[in-house]
Amino acid sequence: MEPGKKIRKVIVIGGGFAGLATVNAMKGANVDITVIDKSNHHLFQPLLYQVATAALSPGDIAAPIRAIFGKNKKTRVILGEVNKIDTEAKKLHLVNESEIAFDQLVIAPGAQYNYFGNEHWKTHAPSLKTISDALKIRERILLSLEQAEQIEDEVKRRPYLTYVIIGGGPTGVETAGAIAEIAGISMRRNYRNIQEKDIKIYLVEAAPAILNGFSVPLGEKGQKMLEKLGVKVLLNSPVSRIEKDEVFLKVGSIKTANIIWAAGIKAPALLKDLKAEKDNLGRIFVKQDLSVPGIPDVYVLGDSAHFKDETGKPLPALASVAKQQGNYLGKLLATDPSEIKTQKPFRYLDKGSMATVGRAKAVAQFKGIKASGFFAWVLWCTVHIMLLVGFRNRWRVFSEWIWNYFTFKRGVQLITDRTNCHNCVPNPVVKSRQITHN
Amino acid sequence: MEPGKKIRKVIVIGGGFAGLATVNAMKGANVDITVIDKSNHHLFQPLLYQVATAALSPGDIAAPIRAIFGKNKKTRVILGEVNKIDTEAKKLHLVNESEIAFDQLVIAPGAQYNYFGNEHWKTHAPSLKTISDALKIRERILLSLEQAEQIEDEVKRRPYLTYVIIGGGPTGVETAGAIAEIAGISMRRNYRNIQEKDIKIYLVEAAPAILNGFSVPLGEKGQKMLEKLGVKVLLNSPVSRIEKDEVFLKVGSIKTANIIWAAGIKAPALLKDLKAEKDNLGRIFVKQDLSVPGIPDVYVLGDSAHFKDETGKPLPALASVAKQQGNYLGKLLATDPSEIKTQKPFRYLDKGSMATVGRAKAVAQFKGIKASGFFAWVLWCTVHIMLLVGFRNRWRVFSEWIWNYFTFKRGVQLITDRTNCHNCVPNPVVKSRQITHN
Repeated sequence: MEPGKKIRKVIVIGGGFAGLATVNAMKGANVDITVIDKSNHHLFQPLLYQVATAALSPGDIAAPIRAIFGKNKKTRVILGEVNKIDTEAKKLHLVNESEIAFDQLVIAPGAQYNYFGNEHWKTHAPSLKTISDALKIRERILLSLEQAEQIEDEVKRRPYLTYVIIGGGPTGVETAGAIAEIAGISMRRNYRNIQEKDIKIYLVEAAPAILNGFSVPLGEKGQKMLEKLGVKVLLNSPVSRIEKDEVFLKVGSIKTANIIWAAGIKAPALLKDLKAEKDNLGRIFVKQDLSVPGIPDVYVLGDSAHFKDETGKPLPALASVAKQQGNYLGKLLATDPSEIKTQKPFRYLDKGSMATVGRAKAVAQFKGIKASGFFAWVLWCTVHIMLLVGFRNRWRVFSEWIWNYFTFKRGVQLITDRTNCHNCVPNPVVKSRQITHN
Repeated sequence: MEPGKKIRKVIVIGGGFAGLATVNAMKGANVDITVIDKSNHHLFQPLLYQVATAALSPGDIAAPIRAIFGKNKKTRVILGEVNKIDTEAKKLHLVNESEIAFDQLVIAPGAQYNYFGNEHWKTHAPSLKTISDALKIRERILLSLEQAEQIEDEVKRRPYLTYVIIGGGPTGVETAGAIAEIAGISMRRNYRNIQEKDIKIYLVEAAPAILNGFSVPLGEKGQKMLEKLGVKVLLNSPVSRIEKDEVFLKVGSIKTANIIWAAGIKAPALLKDLKAEKDNLGRIFVKQDLSVPGIPDVYVLGDSAHFKDETGKPLPALASVAKQQGNYLGKLLATDPSEIKTQKPFRYLDKGSMATVGRAKAVAQFKGIKASGFFAWVLWCTVHIMLLVGFRNRWRVFSEWIWNYFTFKRGVQLITDRTNCHNCVPNPVVKSRQITHN
């Protein structure tokens, strides 16, 4: 360090894939780093649906941010929520009324679910973004089966055995496949009054196809796999209204005690105050070096950024995009700004995409190659385990999957919140919830 | 089966150690069994403090009752709460207003925490009986450290670094030891502003000694081990009052954001209606065959029963007592009542007791033999893993402990409930919680 020179202060908002990669790529640089996140853990969102469907424990797919940077003494971690970003004074205001100054700011808060203006649907149709969301959905699914087991009237119990997943992207497809698996093999032996044929699973998609990020034949293959598992895929079916225990489509409605929302994302409210151009999902248009036009020393990346690729389309909201952007930006920020002459623009290297469809089945594509079935599934498992942060999580997820594969058992069928959280989950008081099916 | 003979209906209330052992011991008998429990899982309570202290996941120490009896087609499982026991009409009334008839009834609902008439203390001093309790305590402990990390005023942050555990039985001792371990090795590297010396842990006990179920020298050894870990043991110190963030003792008070109640148990309210003699903890005095005097075909066992041993003292509230009683009763109920001529009374075989005190330290006693230190700890680990239900749980707990032992890391430091459950955990808004220390 040159004598008398002030150490640069870099603040990173968000401990997701983008934030973590940024900090890791700054390793060894003479910079003070502060990571701020609303939650105390980094969450591996691609496997969140497995927590919601009782295959994994929350602790398997989350790692405390503080522990990740434990050895990195130049990095400070704050559990807190940013209230306002003051880009002129170069200060952040937190919800707890404290302030933090920065020299350079990295904004990577991720995305949140988009109910397209119908935020009140959220109560009836929870989304899948946090561990808390996943546990709520897990308890709904399990409680619903418990209730069905106790209701003898076939019409009254039908809604408890009906599952509607809204949104045919990877999350929706993976969730529908996992529920079909629970309904099939895993649950058949544990319930005395429920038969596999009683369970109805609907995957509802507004567009004419599911898995739109994939090639058309792979999307169709995914749909066929789902249908073989007993999932009814409803295409061209935008949702017009959601009420308690009922989903209304363009034509008709479905009565169900289990609605899961996986239909789209948007940028978080935090970005609203930022005086920069945004797209219709609230994402910031960033330059080729991830900086924000007109606001010096501020960068946006990951799901909150709108980064145009060579064809002019925005990069998809994927973990691999966030990681590569973080890696690029961390290297850029590790260098003193005065020493940067020319800066290469960020380039995304597409390593392919994949989605699993129930037990031992998946679709995957890389450049020209497309794969489906068992091979794609093994690939999916391998890639996801390698992407997990920390040896402990890798080992636990791996052993849980091996267990699950050979025993057909879901390990984590726990209903734990009933006493604390009266709003989340209905008590199994059958008499007060007599719902009829149309 | 004799032609025309009705199949006996046995109902078991409670899926704990006693209930499970009863059902397992009835295996092969020509009896219809129904297990009713308020929660959907069997919980291994002796390790619950490890969930509260971020070492294990809830799924590691719980197994779905439904899955345990999956293959046993004569056993039906109901998730539900019993409202009233009608021993004359031989019927149970559930909270959801359904009724179930029985020929023989096994009551094994376990125990609940005893606040000795001060139930309002529960809000400030949660106890450790359910997974939900354990998660609440885990979040308090972790949030408290997060808050302390952000407060610069040393006096204001002291309550966040002060832990008070009330009750010097095995649960209290094990919890205090585990918190000392978090405060020491595990947390030291992850927090920048907290030093080990800042953390104060108090174990408060009304009696003149801790670990009263053990011999006097072992209890003293346990106390010395705790003190070596930095825990202050306050003996002869009954709690006179608990307020938000403050515990009042006979002399003086302790300001703290973390109070854990582990001071005693009592029988659940369900037993109140039963017309039978009860002790001062609400437990039913049972005969030598675990039946209730004056009420035919009704049995009480486990923590809810007061069973006098040869010396006239009640058997302790231990998993091993509950298991042995269940085993005895199951064999008794497997036989047709008309075929029973003479019935041997239940006899408890004391296999010893043990408690762990922090990392790699424990006290244990069996008949004449007493052990402490590393050997007792290995024994403790082995016995507890063998007592866990199911291979999956055994394997997961075992691998988590191995990981913990070699890395000194606690695997499950997650704060997950904050958005859902505003009453459980304070938001880390430092400014609104300016607490001063006396």
